[in-house]
Amino acid sequence: MTEETGPDQELIANVFARGCSSRAAFETVTGRWASLVLLALADGPHRFGELRRRVEGVSEKMLSQALHGLEREGLLVRTDHGTLPPRVDYALTELGADIAGRLRALADLLEGAVPELDAARAAYARD
Amino acid sequence: MTEETGPDQELIANVFARGCSSRAAFETVTGRWASLVLLALADGPHRFGELRRRVEGVSEKMLSQALHGLEREGLLVRTDHGTLPPRVDYALTELGADIAGRLRALADLLEGAVPELDAARAAYARD
Repeated sequence: MTEETGPDQELIANVFARGCSSRAAFETVTGRWASLVLLALADGPHRFGELRRRVEGVSEKMLSQALHGLEREGLLVRTDHGTLPPRVDYALTELGADIAGRLRALADLLEGAVPELDAARAAYARD
Repeated sequence: MTEETGPDQELIANVFARGCSSRAAFETVTGRWASLVLLALADGPHRFGELRRRVEGVSEKMLSQALHGLEREGLLVRTDHGTLPPRVDYALTELGADIAGRLRALADLLEGAVPELDAARAAYARD
């Protein structure tokens, strides 16, 4: 929720409600690139170039936008080691890691359902 | 995976791989409107108008596209009862319901993290 309300008014977070912070966060973490970045960072901190190679198809611009969005929501921390050549790491916060865990559970399910998904798509194309 | 490979070649589904069916499905189910439609259908079949009211902010066109995408992946079934006035229901398949369950786990986490998300956003805006 983003508005202050009186103590007599119940505050129930609701991902369906346009004004709720949980809806904004849900849109960020399920974003096309942000979701894959969260999955990639689930196994530890990575540098920009590593993320770019891991998340197939992402452009520099899109990766940069996804990282900023996740930083704004407090889901990752950017660490500049102040060295030359520059070295910058991206690591999940505790909340970021929890979210990445839930996304991993979803990805595991889909990776295990590939034969079923392919069959459904083929059946749909035939009709 | 979408290509046929020989029996000596291992087929490992990978959501990071552009050619993998699991990646396409991951993009569909995390889509801005499709994800909320899956969550809305998690508690039972709904009609088009009910979904439109539940998922705040969705347009007719966007809802229609999301429903088609989910039907193509075999995650929901559209039932036209053939009555007058027409009555059409949308219901999740077993795989659709499993996926909706994982998305619900993600949404629960975010709904519970609203104070933390709001604090992170406020801190980011101050910097």
